[in-house]
Amino acid sequence: MSSPTATILLSCPDQRGLVAKIANFIYSNGGNIIHADQHTDFASGVFLTRIEWQLEGFNLPREVINPAFGAIAKPLNANWQLHFSDKIPRIAIWVTKQDHCLLDLLWRWQAKEMAVEIPVMISNHTDLKPIAEQFGIEFYHIPITKDNKKEQETQQLEILKQYQIDLVVLAKYMQILSSYFVAQFPNIINIHHSFLPAFPGANPYQRAYTRGVKIIGATAHYVTEDLDEGPIIEQDVVRVSHRDAVADLIRKGKDLERLVLARAVRLHLQNRVLVYNKRTVVFE
Amino acid sequence: MSSPTATILLSCPDQRGLVAKIANFIYSNGGNIIHADQHTDFASGVFLTRIEWQLEGFNLPREVINPAFGAIAKPLNANWQLHFSDKIPRIAIWVTKQDHCLLDLLWRWQAKEMAVEIPVMISNHTDLKPIAEQFGIEFYHIPITKDNKKEQETQQLEILKQYQIDLVVLAKYMQILSSYFVAQFPNIINIHHSFLPAFPGANPYQRAYTRGVKIIGATAHYVTEDLDEGPIIEQDVVRVSHRDAVADLIRKGKDLERLVLARAVRLHLQNRVLVYNKRTVVFE
Amino acid sequence: MSSPTATILLSCPDQRGLVAKIANFIYSNGGNIIHADQHTDFASGVFLTRIEWQLEGFNLPREVINPAFGAIAKPLNANWQLHFSDKIPRIAIWVTKQDHCLLDLLWRWQAKEMAVEIPVMISNHTDLKPIAEQFGIEFYHIPITKDNKKEQETQQLEILKQYQIDLVVLAKYMQILSSYFVAQFPNIINIHHSFLPAFPGANPYQRAYTRGVKIIGATAHYVTEDLDEGPIIEQDVVRVSHRDAVADLIRKGKDLERLVLARAVRLHLQNRVLVYNKRTVVFE
Amino acid sequence: MSSPTATILLSCPDQRGLVAKIANFIYSNGGNIIHADQHTDFASGVFLTRIEWQLEGFNLPREVINPAFGAIAKPLNANWQLHFSDKIPRIAIWVTKQDHCLLDLLWRWQAKEMAVEIPVMISNHTDLKPIAEQFGIEFYHIPITKDNKKEQETQQLEILKQYQIDLVVLAKYMQILSSYFVAQFPNIINIHHSFLPAFPGANPYQRAYTRGVKIIGATAHYVTEDLDEGPIIEQDVVRVSHRDAVADLIRKGKDLERLVLARAVRLHLQNRVLVYNKRTVVFE
Repeated sequence: MSSPTATILLSCPDQRGLVAKIANFIYSNGGNIIHADQHTDFASGVFLTRIEWQLEGFNLPREVINPAFGAIAKPLNANWQLHFSDKIPRIAIWVTKQDHCLLDLLWRWQAKEMAVEIPVMISNHTDLKPIAEQFGIEFYHIPITKDNKKEQETQQLEILKQYQIDLVVLAKYMQILSSYFVAQFPNIINIHHSFLPAFPGANPYQRAYTRGVKIIGATAHYVTEDLDEGPIIEQDVVRVSHRDAVADLIRKGKDLERLVLARAVRLHLQNRVLVYNKRTVVFE
Repeated sequence: MSSPTATILLSCPDQRGLVAKIANFIYSNGGNIIHADQHTDFASGVFLTRIEWQLEGFNLPREVINPAFGAIAKPLNANWQLHFSDKIPRIAIWVTKQDHCLLDLLWRWQAKEMAVEIPVMISNHTDLKPIAEQFGIEFYHIPITKDNKKEQETQQLEILKQYQIDLVVLAKYMQILSSYFVAQFPNIINIHHSFLPAFPGANPYQRAYTRGVKIIGATAHYVTEDLDEGPIIEQDVVRVSHRDAVADLIRKGKDLERLVLARAVRLHLQNRVLVYNKRTVVFE
Repeated sequence: MSSPTATILLSCPDQRGLVAKIANFIYSNGGNIIHADQHTDFASGVFLTRIEWQLEGFNLPREVINPAFGAIAKPLNANWQLHFSDKIPRIAIWVTKQDHCLLDLLWRWQAKEMAVEIPVMISNHTDLKPIAEQFGIEFYHIPITKDNKKEQETQQLEILKQYQIDLVVLAKYMQILSSYFVAQFPNIINIHHSFLPAFPGANPYQRAYTRGVKIIGATAHYVTEDLDEGPIIEQDVVRVSHRDAVADLIRKGKDLERLVLARAVRLHLQNRVLVYNKRTVVFE
Repeated sequence: MSSPTATILLSCPDQRGLVAKIANFIYSNGGNIIHADQHTDFASGVFLTRIEWQLEGFNLPREVINPAFGAIAKPLNANWQLHFSDKIPRIAIWVTKQDHCLLDLLWRWQAKEMAVEIPVMISNHTDLKPIAEQFGIEFYHIPITKDNKKEQETQQLEILKQYQIDLVVLAKYMQILSSYFVAQFPNIINIHHSFLPAFPGANPYQRAYTRGVKIIGATAHYVTEDLDEGPIIEQDVVRVSHRDAVADLIRKGKDLERLVLARAVRLHLQNRVLVYNKRTVVFE
């Protein structure tokens, strides 16, 4: 699988011949499909697909693929993205004080589980700066107050631009991004420490304890302007009992948060996630 | 294990010597403890315990156990229950139109998974009357309207009294019980078709679909006057994906509902559940 | 989705253009694809696909589809199956004495979870004959001894032929089928009460208890001549603890067996399972 | 809970009055029990218990507790251990080349999830020496060949003695310990990368792939002289599908291995695990 590949993620109104038209585009240009998956939401009449093929032996030069595919996709009223597997995505990790999600992502990066560059970290505190230094990552300390939020977000956006960031990962970043920010930068994944939509907002573990639930969860989702309402990418859960105090829920939850965030980031980086109707299709 | 046993469920303010005092009561009267478990909630200072011992060889006659134990428990400001394993509990199952939870409970009853009597069913519809007849259970059709709810609940309470019912199981009974009813009859277990506190109220599967969750759940809880807010006994979950339409969530959810309700009823019948602070301790 | 559909399950050596060729066949004949999934096993060079399309508006008459598709598939050295969704499959359920898997399947059948006919049951005992009668199913009592196995299997095969059975479900049938039988009738699903390959053969729950495992499982698989070695369709697990005696493992395991067998049968009936290299691809 | 506690883990032949006798010992000496759990295995007639109480206010000096308790325990033919919570256990971590379990344990140590000292690492390779240095842990490179195993194990035992090690954690140590070694040092926890007893021995992921299982697992167990046959402390599983190649099983399995090993080590360190009949009781 070491040959570079191209991947198209596409959604459009459902109609006959979609699979054939897209597959023909690749086949007639000499491409070898290595993954093709599709989903039709019959209730809303939406067709979604992911198709990945090897660039070796493909007749079209890279810069021609998108316009050539557009000739097929535009008449279908499609939205689509084209990705090349050897274009390594660039991530900015945002943190506050907790390091478990951060360390987990960095370990997977080091272990080459994810083909990614992580050039920059942003935090509203300085606690995790030493980790950034240890891994050779630029660290920006951008404290947030009620009064400076607008300016600080402007600076954050400049950093994302400067480092050519493709994806922001909020790895326990305990600040709410403004609608303005979210509108400027679309690709943001957050980890929420509850099984959404249960316990949105603050202190989910304390509230889970008080409610006496028997299972707790974590949720990785894209960030939208509605807090904790973004499209869900991945969730997982773990059993708890009356023996678990709030501190135990937090401890167990940390393990969940690490795994769920890492899985969501991986799926996004492999271009396996499509958003529609505030939901995700995950082409695993 | 065929010898009959006695079980005490007790809660009281935490203090020294509780385990010793209770264990001594049983030991000094010749009892053989076969299960003892306890939990201390240090945050609220509550001690809770379940202790079960064989009646064979126990020196106190049954009718004396409760007053004799009271001499120990009352100075501790304890609440306690005493149960004998050969007193078979009597259940009333309430249903509307769906039969999956009902049939599941009846199978387990027939397969002797639960030592229980099920003399009566109550429904606001007649659809499931044939199942009652097949299993030799009395069936009461008590339709509910806005105007007749008070009288119908009075009749329901009379039936519970007449049949000496210990536990009401709402096996997909799609009516809300009034505060009045709940105050009159405390032991009611309901199955809710979501992972509470996510999606309380109506249509949880439709709402889970719309929200795009990746996991759905079911929750068995004691009924209190606050709808879907009662102490949770048991929960479980199952993965779903974008391929699952609402009908699939309903189908997968039915399997969850059956299992979760059956487990909760079993735990209650074995006197393993204690409620405190709107939560449960489950002595498994 | 009420319109009838055709489904092709196909496997062949991997090569370029497979998706395009198959999609074109359907599109060029006016078919509307409602599900298409594929998998390439790069290690063994095998391509596998499932494709389903609506027959309404499809230009080819049903009896022509197979030969027409063969003109495409044969040059690919493909193995394929063609199924029509309105051809209701016919199941024979085989049992011994335990009724939990049987009742679960019958309940799903009655609840219309599975579009299937169940005309006949076979058992080596008579215990479950009343259930057959209750559901209007023919019941054949075919006891097996060392000496009569060959003749009895001959009779069993005749019954399968007589009732035009498409699938045999071993719902806790506690006899081993001979290689001869398995060679004669390929579509047999069995439920094994362990997490295979752990605890193949007899008494898995007792052995799981003795080994002190913390999780038990159940496995649904196609039957091959190698006992408990057939391709696995579905597995699931449940936690156990030191508090669970063998009887508890059996009780918990029964719930697993029911669910796992029902899921496997459903997947098979929806033509979602392809076998290759003694493994299955499940197109969910 | 910051006050130091004492914990007794005890097993003995079952008889009347065990709970009372042990609870009385603590109560009569002024102890406040904060955790008490017990289990009776009726099949083998073994009683097992864990009891933990606060040392503050306890009348017996620490050095007297063990002999005083012995006066009660010896007549019961009991085996017991006494632990003090402020005696921090000392761990040696053994590794080969893989770092995921090691890093996970070190993070938890740094995050103060485990009250433990980790003074020394042993490896048959030098790959992970930099991690040891980063965390300030002594690192011993002890390569193993067929010919030097005996001498090397002697050196290993000397290191354990020198560093006063209480527990050896095999965090992906890819060598088999001899019966001699295991007899000399009893407290060794290993992580095996399969759901034992499925796939004991080498290459479990490759074998799981070949067998086509739908769920893979990991198992933490005490090491005994029978390879992969030691008492199981903890297991967990994750779903896989036909889309998962061997490399994906390995990747998913690593997450399992990390969690399962960390949970087992935590349970052991909190003195919650008792071994009997080659099984464990885990007092959670």
